[in-house]
Amino acid sequence: MDINAVVGKNVKHHREAKGFSQEQLAFEADLHRTYISGVERGVRNPTVLIIAKLADALGVKPSKLLELEE
Amino acid sequence: MDINAVVGKNVKHHREAKGFSQEQLAFEADLHRTYISGVERGVRNPTVLIIAKLADALGVKPSKLLELEE
Repeated sequence: MDINAVVGKNVKHHREAKGFSQEQLAFEADLHRTYISGVERGVRNPTVLIIAKLADALGVKPSKLLELEE
Repeated sequence: MDINAVVGKNVKHHREAKGFSQEQLAFEADLHRTYISGVERGVRNPTVLIIAKLADALGVKPSKLLELEE
């Protein structure tokens, strides 16, 4: 799986585990909802700083968002 | 520590553990040596795809490069 698809899957998984909508995550991470949507679909190639913002809003370590979970 | 500084520290650590010069890592990851230097100094904000290329060249998982090691 492409690394951006891995990130997208993880963001969606942790967002849903927190019961957040894409709007809520966007607000918490100070990003746009359409950007969150693009990340989750694996069509965005976020920077490390964006990964850190998403991880912080989701309450996980940044490295967690890059892990391929089985 | 800023996340880009964490990445820089990890890249340098794993590069030296492999006995690679910055030139060698640049060649293996298909990046420019000055870019590697900037990443190691924490002044670059690499994308997830760049993290994957660096990790692949260093023989570690991408998530490893974002981990704050004690």
